[in-house]
Amino acid sequence: MRVIVIGGGMFGASAAYQLARSGAEVSIIDHVHPGKATMAGAGIVCPWATKIDDPEWYEMYAAGGRFYDQLVAMLAEDGETEFGYRKVGALVTSSDAAELRSAGERIARRVGTAPEAGDVRLLTPKEAQGMFPVLREGLEAYFIPGGARVDARLLSAAMVRAAVKHGAQYRNDYVTLELANGRVRCRDGRGQHLEADEVVVAAGAWASQILEPLGITHPVKPQKGQIIHLRLAGVATAQWPVLLPMTSHYMLTFDDSRVVVGATREDDSGFDYRVTAAGQAEVLAAGMEIAPGLVNAEIIETRIGFRPAGPTTKPIFGRIPGIEGLSVGNGLGAGGISIGPFAGKLLADIVSGRTPEMPVAAYAP
Amino acid sequence: MRVIVIGGGMFGASAAYQLARSGAEVSIIDHVHPGKATMAGAGIVCPWATKIDDPEWYEMYAAGGRFYDQLVAMLAEDGETEFGYRKVGALVTSSDAAELRSAGERIARRVGTAPEAGDVRLLTPKEAQGMFPVLREGLEAYFIPGGARVDARLLSAAMVRAAVKHGAQYRNDYVTLELANGRVRCRDGRGQHLEADEVVVAAGAWASQILEPLGITHPVKPQKGQIIHLRLAGVATAQWPVLLPMTSHYMLTFDDSRVVVGATREDDSGFDYRVTAAGQAEVLAAGMEIAPGLVNAEIIETRIGFRPAGPTTKPIFGRIPGIEGLSVGNGLGAGGISIGPFAGKLLADIVSGRTPEMPVAAYAP
Amino acid sequence: MRVIVIGGGMFGASAAYQLARSGAEVSIIDHVHPGKATMAGAGIVCPWATKIDDPEWYEMYAAGGRFYDQLVAMLAEDGETEFGYRKVGALVTSSDAAELRSAGERIARRVGTAPEAGDVRLLTPKEAQGMFPVLREGLEAYFIPGGARVDARLLSAAMVRAAVKHGAQYRNDYVTLELANGRVRCRDGRGQHLEADEVVVAAGAWASQILEPLGITHPVKPQKGQIIHLRLAGVATAQWPVLLPMTSHYMLTFDDSRVVVGATREDDSGFDYRVTAAGQAEVLAAGMEIAPGLVNAEIIETRIGFRPAGPTTKPIFGRIPGIEGLSVGNGLGAGGISIGPFAGKLLADIVSGRTPEMPVAAYAP
Amino acid sequence: MRVIVIGGGMFGASAAYQLARSGAEVSIIDHVHPGKATMAGAGIVCPWATKIDDPEWYEMYAAGGRFYDQLVAMLAEDGETEFGYRKVGALVTSSDAAELRSAGERIARRVGTAPEAGDVRLLTPKEAQGMFPVLREGLEAYFIPGGARVDARLLSAAMVRAAVKHGAQYRNDYVTLELANGRVRCRDGRGQHLEADEVVVAAGAWASQILEPLGITHPVKPQKGQIIHLRLAGVATAQWPVLLPMTSHYMLTFDDSRVVVGATREDDSGFDYRVTAAGQAEVLAAGMEIAPGLVNAEIIETRIGFRPAGPTTKPIFGRIPGIEGLSVGNGLGAGGISIGPFAGKLLADIVSGRTPEMPVAAYAP
Repeated sequence: MRVIVIGGGMFGASAAYQLARSGAEVSIIDHVHPGKATMAGAGIVCPWATKIDDPEWYEMYAAGGRFYDQLVAMLAEDGETEFGYRKVGALVTSSDAAELRSAGERIARRVGTAPEAGDVRLLTPKEAQGMFPVLREGLEAYFIPGGARVDARLLSAAMVRAAVKHGAQYRNDYVTLELANGRVRCRDGRGQHLEADEVVVAAGAWASQILEPLGITHPVKPQKGQIIHLRLAGVATAQWPVLLPMTSHYMLTFDDSRVVVGATREDDSGFDYRVTAAGQAEVLAAGMEIAPGLVNAEIIETRIGFRPAGPTTKPIFGRIPGIEGLSVGNGLGAGGISIGPFAGKLLADIVSGRTPEMPVAAYAP
Repeated sequence: MRVIVIGGGMFGASAAYQLARSGAEVSIIDHVHPGKATMAGAGIVCPWATKIDDPEWYEMYAAGGRFYDQLVAMLAEDGETEFGYRKVGALVTSSDAAELRSAGERIARRVGTAPEAGDVRLLTPKEAQGMFPVLREGLEAYFIPGGARVDARLLSAAMVRAAVKHGAQYRNDYVTLELANGRVRCRDGRGQHLEADEVVVAAGAWASQILEPLGITHPVKPQKGQIIHLRLAGVATAQWPVLLPMTSHYMLTFDDSRVVVGATREDDSGFDYRVTAAGQAEVLAAGMEIAPGLVNAEIIETRIGFRPAGPTTKPIFGRIPGIEGLSVGNGLGAGGISIGPFAGKLLADIVSGRTPEMPVAAYAP
Repeated sequence: MRVIVIGGGMFGASAAYQLARSGAEVSIIDHVHPGKATMAGAGIVCPWATKIDDPEWYEMYAAGGRFYDQLVAMLAEDGETEFGYRKVGALVTSSDAAELRSAGERIARRVGTAPEAGDVRLLTPKEAQGMFPVLREGLEAYFIPGGARVDARLLSAAMVRAAVKHGAQYRNDYVTLELANGRVRCRDGRGQHLEADEVVVAAGAWASQILEPLGITHPVKPQKGQIIHLRLAGVATAQWPVLLPMTSHYMLTFDDSRVVVGATREDDSGFDYRVTAAGQAEVLAAGMEIAPGLVNAEIIETRIGFRPAGPTTKPIFGRIPGIEGLSVGNGLGAGGISIGPFAGKLLADIVSGRTPEMPVAAYAP
Repeated sequence: MRVIVIGGGMFGASAAYQLARSGAEVSIIDHVHPGKATMAGAGIVCPWATKIDDPEWYEMYAAGGRFYDQLVAMLAEDGETEFGYRKVGALVTSSDAAELRSAGERIARRVGTAPEAGDVRLLTPKEAQGMFPVLREGLEAYFIPGGARVDARLLSAAMVRAAVKHGAQYRNDYVTLELANGRVRCRDGRGQHLEADEVVVAAGAWASQILEPLGITHPVKPQKGQIIHLRLAGVATAQWPVLLPMTSHYMLTFDDSRVVVGATREDDSGFDYRVTAAGQAEVLAAGMEIAPGLVNAEIIETRIGFRPAGPTTKPIFGRIPGIEGLSVGNGLGAGGISIGPFAGKLLADIVSGRTPEMPVAAYAP
């Protein structure tokens, strides 16, 4: 089976990898769009703390988190080990005691059926600061040992390489779709038709534009996020937990003394690829408020990502009815790093005609 | 009349500017694509030396060059004066005596009816080096005083600002087109329909993709160019002529000690936005061969542009038959900087219902 | 006379230029230090509004501003015309009515003897916003027509090129000084001695380090500034006046829709070359407070400059007593762009043995 | 014991780390010089193939390579595991059969006493290409399993962090030295004296300048190297061996599809921090000649490093006679990545008054 996967982000790279592993002849075609969500995404994998309560979404979110152990093992087999993944745990905190208590209850309820979360416990402010030294004084926090972080840029590249190892082709181009006798057909930037049995559109925020020539109204729109990378030079941040203060902002660290603070959620910006004065000020203020020790940190980069946001928080994936050979994987919104690899695997199953390991009807396009 | 112009490059910015000047209510919507031809284009305006002989194309090319005086005056009225434009003259040379003679005859024939080219004369190698100090020894050259250079990035931005001064709106988004009752309709990145009487697609190498949902097969494809910017620190390069060695490579300078060497012509790369080892080596070798004095110059940047290349060298612009409210301006290929501003003006005339100042039937889509 | 000028910033480039013009055989040796004040400096030339009252300093500051007309003419003769210089005027405003009144009195007193400042007048808030459209509502402002802005990076490069045109050499290296029989001697990065009759140290914040091997305790230290460049895409900012809100922050614009907001003043940071969370937040907040229209502007760059700050605001220049052949030009602090070119000229006179056009004893090292 | 270490490159970071581990109170002061050798260094650790035959130098070089196992283990204990280190093996090849044979003999002789090199064997051209797929056809090669590569930027940062974990201070500033009663004394960028019992100058190519105020003529000069980083997108390069073609150029890869090609050796450039046309062309040509499969690779970066080159290839480290409290570590030249960590450890022993594990007299300043 020849499959073209459009998009090399979290969803597309995962689908391509799983398809290639199972023997399909895969071509990944990726375009250099600035603002790809995967390239900007912070990298938190910690499903149990979220405030969102939609059960179908949460089921997927939790399964996505659980899938990481399997994915890491699979990639190691394929020679890929460096993508910033580490189970550093998560600190859930809040300035508001009632909110923290309610978060604690929510977490307790969820980890009951999720042994991979580890033994959650409430830390004193001092203990919390011990784990995350730049944290504000006086904040209690729940510690969830199973929380993890990953560098999404590196992970998607690793999945692409692993796919290539299993025979996939990878290139940089801009592909458009057209209908030919009820089937989808691809044309590349050179104007040439590409042969394939199946086309998987995993183009994130740009998918609506790509699907339009087929007469499909795809409901995903960009939700802009601005995210700041700081450096605490000389500080060993490799083991710091991710920090979830129950606001729309959060923090995580990587091995190279890097602290990532995210993110704005801008629903009405379209594809406006600009770091803005207000956006930068908002994220800096949120970061310094919860972690005053960042005041003297170095700003090394601000990234912009257009999260592919559907009408609900639920991902959207599966075959497009009425058009032969066309599938889509999209709508991950802010949960792409947790959900993407697993949803990509489910989509690979669908495209290959295998039965996915969990019911997927709720996510059909 | 409300007009949406898609694309803020040379063609779109010029059309938008002229439309706004003549009273239309213009919205320019521009996407942050890496590889826009205007952003990478070298900036030579010197129609008389080209080897291409298609008379319809040459007529447009020459008129485009001639238009610059008018454009510069118009922009000055609108407060825009800094876009690197200067009539520095052009040196036409060749390693091959026969080719140089033939170039000389061609130039002589053409400048007969082009007083703006000035008095062309053959320089001795020493004179040529006097004008372009890094030039190889022993090369005679024709000097065409009317040749000019311009910074296309700055010029397109200046035209956009001048349009805004005349009431245009400008923003950064990604627009798609759809058909509604025989008319074209725009939808922006937020999924909202934008109202307009006319839509002008000036999206360069991406136009084929943008027009596809309308069922239009637009014949423009990307021709990739890699172009290197060097610095000769401390050297006053502001007055150096552009250098046309009658190969596919060329050279020009700007005020800030910058020397631009261009460019590869890669027809089969699609939208492959990568500076490549072979491309960089090719351009460096060509530059050092004709101008050995560049050996110790600093490499400051390599730019990539996807030239919008049609089936012939001729530009393509005008109304799209069969769809109400839709026009296109495209296909400038390697001649975009010379032709773009003038072709944009002609297109503005067409869209406004005015008679263009020269016959345009040969360029209709 | 052979002169080595160490440093190609405002002071060094100017001294080198004037020396080369008057026939000296000049070598400019410049090191790629990140954080050069000239490379980061905002570019305001408007001496009459400053709150600093030291009369010797102000005399120099005012003379520096006045010198610009002469400098621009001189550079134009040498073929250099593009360095972002424009007399856009200055708006002096304040949130505090008493402070504004006091600024008005100070300005009135000073411009009495400075016809080049033009006719100062008090603008209504509406008029002020007309000139600087992103300005906060409700602010009266004094308008000083003679205020100007300049791009210091481009200006210093233009002076270097003009010096080269007059025979100077320019190169990139790191020079150290040593004493040999009571004379200063230079050694370059290759370890070679460089012959010269005179050595001019114009190394800004690094001069203390460079002079140390000679046993000289030079009192200049780095004062770190962080300065943000924003873009208001599509907006014609070329004619906006500089904005002086009588705080330590200020704003100015360039032709390319760029708005520059400055700057922190960090006295205890040494050579700490890092954009910091707190510094960025401070400058953004100050900018958005006085100019709320910047909220949606794009952040394009943050620059860091180490202002060479002496024990007083006064510049320090002249021969170093006791060592033959050694002069220094330094200590410009935050006033470098206004004072630098003129002080460089005075220093060139001193080094050449000419009588400077104003008394310079107060500024001797 | 309070120690100030000037320089956070390979030598300084290692010395600081070992000193902090053994209980000293260490301050690392590092300046943001562009062109630090450690930041640009390619990262090959493979002592056995070198053509250089000086026995004292080779002893150090081999010991440096051997030390890596110990260093990696030590850093892992301190929580540092990600610095791109991997024993990928080395391919030694040559276009010249006689040279390859002679290299083979040299290697055989050396690995006899170096079991850590593993079992060296001669590969057929096909086997060699199997290991390094972009290699030119027809090249036999010796494979040395014990060869390794490391990311020097990450490694030096990891050693700094590990030092900080053991109590060291780290900051970004520019320190100068002066003599006070026969002892060395440091002054920082703020002009303040820093107290210390010992000062270790590990400032690489800049050390000569830093030592000059003390009247010391330090014989180290910068040897400029330009080094190109390419990307083979989608290609799993993590396990490729380093490639040593017995010229002054070489190649190595990292996990992220990155291929590093080095490097020019420019002895007369001083601190000329510029990527040059000739330098870039040289390295690209060398790379494509030995590895034609790089033709279509993406150029992602060119780095410049000033190797600290002494009068011989031998490193220079130990106490400076005649000045109390002053040590130096320098002169690593092109061997810094192999030798630096081990030499830093030896220097730490010397500074601490411990007996180094191998004789060091040959390397004394």
